[in-house]
Amino acid sequence: MAAGLVDAAGGVRSFRAVPTDRLGRGDGVLRNLVDVVTGLKDDARRVNEPLLGIGIGVPGAVDIDTGTIGEDIQNIPEFRCLALGRVLHERMGIPIVLDNDVNALTMGEWVFGQARGLRHVAMIAVGTSIGGGLILNGTLVRGASGYGGEIGHITVDLDGPGCFCGSRGCLRVFASGAEIARQAVALAQTNQPSLLTELAKGQPDRIDAPLVFAAASKGDPVALSVLAKAAQALGAGVANLINLCNPEMVVLGGGVMEAGEVLMEPVIRWARFYAFEAAFDRTQIVRSTLSKASGVLGAAALFLYERNRGTVAGSG
Amino acid sequence: MAAGLVDAAGGVRSFRAVPTDRLGRGDGVLRNLVDVVTGLKDDARRVNEPLLGIGIGVPGAVDIDTGTIGEDIQNIPEFRCLALGRVLHERMGIPIVLDNDVNALTMGEWVFGQARGLRHVAMIAVGTSIGGGLILNGTLVRGASGYGGEIGHITVDLDGPGCFCGSRGCLRVFASGAEIARQAVALAQTNQPSLLTELAKGQPDRIDAPLVFAAASKGDPVALSVLAKAAQALGAGVANLINLCNPEMVVLGGGVMEAGEVLMEPVIRWARFYAFEAAFDRTQIVRSTLSKASGVLGAAALFLYERNRGTVAGSG
Repeated sequence: MAAGLVDAAGGVRSFRAVPTDRLGRGDGVLRNLVDVVTGLKDDARRVNEPLLGIGIGVPGAVDIDTGTIGEDIQNIPEFRCLALGRVLHERMGIPIVLDNDVNALTMGEWVFGQARGLRHVAMIAVGTSIGGGLILNGTLVRGASGYGGEIGHITVDLDGPGCFCGSRGCLRVFASGAEIARQAVALAQTNQPSLLTELAKGQPDRIDAPLVFAAASKGDPVALSVLAKAAQALGAGVANLINLCNPEMVVLGGGVMEAGEVLMEPVIRWARFYAFEAAFDRTQIVRSTLSKASGVLGAAALFLYERNRGTVAGSG
Repeated sequence: MAAGLVDAAGGVRSFRAVPTDRLGRGDGVLRNLVDVVTGLKDDARRVNEPLLGIGIGVPGAVDIDTGTIGEDIQNIPEFRCLALGRVLHERMGIPIVLDNDVNALTMGEWVFGQARGLRHVAMIAVGTSIGGGLILNGTLVRGASGYGGEIGHITVDLDGPGCFCGSRGCLRVFASGAEIARQAVALAQTNQPSLLTELAKGQPDRIDAPLVFAAASKGDPVALSVLAKAAQALGAGVANLINLCNPEMVVLGGGVMEAGEVLMEPVIRWARFYAFEAAFDRTQIVRSTLSKASGVLGAAALFLYERNRGTVAGSG
């Protein structure tokens, strides 16, 4: 759990984090959250700046009107259907804006990142899983119940492998960090000896997405085949965003994209293949440059967006 | 080419059409268009109503700001890159709004149809090809260059059959009217005797989508297999819209959807399979009820939308 004090120019003035293994369960997570926010209040006092409010990104769909977390939240089951926005606002007495974490990342790119000033922006965050966010006609697309932008669960293969969501052929079953690692482990165990096994020092559970990319860079055929399919699927995902939403920019972020050109080059090649040429030519496809502060900047951007729209109660 | 005089309540006060086989080529099409618009001016005078302006839907992407038709227009190559909005405005002296035909259909559903009053609406028009339109946060999604909503060209099968657009596995290669007919013809010619051949009176070029649905209703296995794949792909397309855009309503229109329940039932079943349950449950999936006037109502709705936004020059 990371938090920071961000100024209107995108400067991160303080940074606080609670490692996941020290997070409590249930009410404990909420207490961690209250502690962190209290810390930010102290930080603001120390730098002599007013704390306008708090933006929070959570790993799941959020009903923005009520600040309520949806049913499908993955990592913190205790937060399922919790009106966290209201609860925190009552405890802390400051304005709170709560949304999906990838919506927050997308806002970060739009307010503080490379997408500044554009009207149509799509984000794909490729981490352990895959999330996304959409800004169209200058507004964040949340949809009827907060599922807007869930690019990781669009089907790119009608009869493809099953996904935990109950569907098949979702983009994330080809290109999420967890699936890249899982496929590499499976192939490394069944196929001929691979550089993967060597790099993992014989321990398959050490194989993660960065290790797969490292092996691919050195020409390992198993790693290259996993990478090739992930890039093809991600390229199709980018193209589907281009053909359906015709954004000016698609930002690719998340830990898996830190692989850099070894992944970006084939993703862009496939996106060009699958997209309308005339729409593709109008789209910049870039990697996020916000780096480790992207989550904190995103949450701050989310708050500023809602404050500017006048939807934040008590924010003056 | 169809045109009509529409009042603000969605009443069609006059209707004019030029059959496709009587359309001119090149400048001829433009002359047909001028004749039809001139006719509408006469109609307005006859019913003693002011003609506020003209909305036009064309089969291709349009740059709305300049009223210029894109490169990819299929049926009227002479209109490629033509600033038709400006040309017509100069000739006719009345405000003109030009957009993609399926964007117009979508506006029709929103202004005059079942989607009235909603904030998030998606349309899929299944005809000879497949088009789409998106209204999100109460605004039409055109994107950076007018390709917004092109659901027919999102990839639902990474390594699927090629599409005329240069991509693979586009939704339209499984579920457009032309492809449904093409696949049925191919199967009817290579497989065991089929009811299709009988219904087509031995002439394979008589096999079209309605004939395939008729044969499917009577249990013909070849027709049923083509219908099954089309419904699966369309269901995935609906689900992709739900997961990515989370609309309150998806409207299915176009000639192919006139098949009715034989197609709608499996489409909805597959959409439920591929979509997030919590998002699916918030989405109404309906067939268009605007029927034969949908194009004319859509064009009128498009004009009213732009007029209300204050973007129409000279419309007062």
